[in-house]
Amino acid sequence: MKCAAGIEARQVDEVAINIDPIQAGGRLTADAMKAVIAYGDGYSVCDNCRKPNRLDYISKPPIAEFHKAVAGWLNMDTARMVPGARRGFQAVAHTYVRKGDPVLLTSLSHYTEFLAVEEAGGVAREIPANEQKLVTPDGTAQKIEEVIRDSGRPPVIAFIDHVDYQYGNMHDVKGIAKVAHQYDIPVLYNGAYTVGILPVNGKDLGVDFVVGSAHKSMASPAPSGVLATTAEHAKEMFRTTAITGDVTNRKFGIKEPAMMGCTLMGVTLVGMMASFPHVKERVKHFERELENHRIVTEALLSVEGTEILSEYPRKHTMTRVETIASFDRVAEVHKKRGYYFSSALEERGVTGLIPGATKVWKFNTYGTTRKQAEYLAHAFVEIARENGLKVS
Amino acid sequence: MKCAAGIEARQVDEVAINIDPIQAGGRLTADAMKAVIAYGDGYSVCDNCRKPNRLDYISKPPIAEFHKAVAGWLNMDTARMVPGARRGFQAVAHTYVRKGDPVLLTSLSHYTEFLAVEEAGGVAREIPANEQKLVTPDGTAQKIEEVIRDSGRPPVIAFIDHVDYQYGNMHDVKGIAKVAHQYDIPVLYNGAYTVGILPVNGKDLGVDFVVGSAHKSMASPAPSGVLATTAEHAKEMFRTTAITGDVTNRKFGIKEPAMMGCTLMGVTLVGMMASFPHVKERVKHFERELENHRIVTEALLSVEGTEILSEYPRKHTMTRVETIASFDRVAEVHKKRGYYFSSALEERGVTGLIPGATKVWKFNTYGTTRKQAEYLAHAFVEIARENGLKVS
Repeated sequence: MKCAAGIEARQVDEVAINIDPIQAGGRLTADAMKAVIAYGDGYSVCDNCRKPNRLDYISKPPIAEFHKAVAGWLNMDTARMVPGARRGFQAVAHTYVRKGDPVLLTSLSHYTEFLAVEEAGGVAREIPANEQKLVTPDGTAQKIEEVIRDSGRPPVIAFIDHVDYQYGNMHDVKGIAKVAHQYDIPVLYNGAYTVGILPVNGKDLGVDFVVGSAHKSMASPAPSGVLATTAEHAKEMFRTTAITGDVTNRKFGIKEPAMMGCTLMGVTLVGMMASFPHVKERVKHFERELENHRIVTEALLSVEGTEILSEYPRKHTMTRVETIASFDRVAEVHKKRGYYFSSALEERGVTGLIPGATKVWKFNTYGTTRKQAEYLAHAFVEIARENGLKVS
Repeated sequence: MKCAAGIEARQVDEVAINIDPIQAGGRLTADAMKAVIAYGDGYSVCDNCRKPNRLDYISKPPIAEFHKAVAGWLNMDTARMVPGARRGFQAVAHTYVRKGDPVLLTSLSHYTEFLAVEEAGGVAREIPANEQKLVTPDGTAQKIEEVIRDSGRPPVIAFIDHVDYQYGNMHDVKGIAKVAHQYDIPVLYNGAYTVGILPVNGKDLGVDFVVGSAHKSMASPAPSGVLATTAEHAKEMFRTTAITGDVTNRKFGIKEPAMMGCTLMGVTLVGMMASFPHVKERVKHFERELENHRIVTEALLSVEGTEILSEYPRKHTMTRVETIASFDRVAEVHKKRGYYFSSALEERGVTGLIPGATKVWKFNTYGTTRKQAEYLAHAFVEIARENGLKVS
């Protein structure tokens, strides 16, 4: 079935259990779907734009109220919506990083943080993760000292992922921020895998910026995200424009250059707004998600030779698995080679695994019901047994 | 009717003739609406992302093909989709403008172009529009000479709006680009009001960059837009990442830092793709749009005291009108004051005028049928007559 010329109507989350590592938290709520239909047209949220003509002041639909609510929910002072977490990184890097400045990242940082630093002319300095693949306050202190020795000055800012994209491990951002602040280094909290998934309290964590990805973790259409900060940093971050036209002497009011003026608009913003009440509620029940996830990881671990590469027990529902000594051994002899594994899952109505991957792979059970988790667990065990692998 | 808690389901283009100056070209096509429903979920277009793992290489849905088609349609060599025209301006300014560099804009440039220059540290130098509110090649040459006298060097780039947001006037970009190129100044063509509205041929215009707004003029959800360039500039503009991690020695493949990695994704991109065949077709029939627009402007001009502030005859369907000596005179005595005008239009099923505006205002008839244009023309005349204004 096509939805437009040459474009197949997507039916993934409607027809399968989707365990794609990046898609699970961005599946729309029913309210967001309805909002998307109502606000699809380009400048749909601008019907009632009045002076001072900035998107985050619009009260119908309640955009202004939503901005305040999101800031409060994250326990930060001010928030703006942005076209994806990466645009939050970009805005912060562009404001705080000058050419040649050392910037603290981690050995598990996402590539978009590197690109933001690159574009600002900064030099990436990674805090190494330890053997448990965890970034620690001690590791942070050592790295800062190393940067000071090398550059004669501390890094200008630190980008720290609370839960990283590689292992889904949870790092001690609170401890890291404490160390960074001893050197007056502001901390950006990358909540791409947490904001909208589990409770995030910016002030309690002691961070200066909170960035979230709405299309990854807030049940919203892409591209969407949030950048929140403290009253102290808001003045710099959300400074208003100062440029003037040399002929017309025009000024541009309260538009914010780091945000490129009006921020996230239209269908993406309204999708975020419609999902927000549900997102606020769901983060309170993250324990339930972990419990469902445990059912699946335990089933995987029951297949002899399978290893969970992520920290264990799990603190997040996105997990990295190694099946070199289990499912991959089947691939060596199977007529479908590595594709047998994703095929066997697809046949059981499970999707989201990279086709052909049988060595190291990631999956995310966020949003599955207990029944679906049990079904998933059973599917993995069944595929193992059918292919002659030992299950304990 | 609410579409989600606290969010009224928007019904504007469904129930009224909408002459909002910025909304007319961004109304979704039926195909885009269907695509939006099918691709609402966050990372919806990433189901079939394979190596080299960059969005514009995905072939299902046909994103790679779409990128090539858009570049060809604009007669440029390479195109990327971006979250709004402003993100195109930002990427170009960030690549070509260094702190203190003079940048050529015009006295009718949009504020987002100023913000892009501001963020890159550039100095805005406006080419003055002439008395007819037109930016000309001669004016451009004079301004470049003035900048050279002031700064000892020519501007590093020129941002030129083909059709400006203030008057909807059409400026001689081809002539301006010719002049700019004599000084080796690359030219960015701002097609926010043209790309998707009328035929745009980048090579024929002789410009180096073409930026379009999809949520303004390509019947797409927000935020969306396009940045296209020549083979010569693509190397700089779409350079691939060079940053590395100092601990992991990670590199980030063919991701493009000016684009912040993967470009426009999800619902916005698929909306653009679904509307594209219709957009390609509609630009061929712009004369019909101008003819419908003429019906309305002539009706407005028949109301004594009304003036069209835009160039006349019109070359675009977005027009600036002065009604100080006509509709505003009624406002002085009407019990609803200025609101009588938008009210009277709303009662007739016409929307998109700023409530209360009776002095100077803009409207856009893009996409109206001939019958709707005639209805609109009649509505303006009728409101004039009912309020005792002379109609010739």
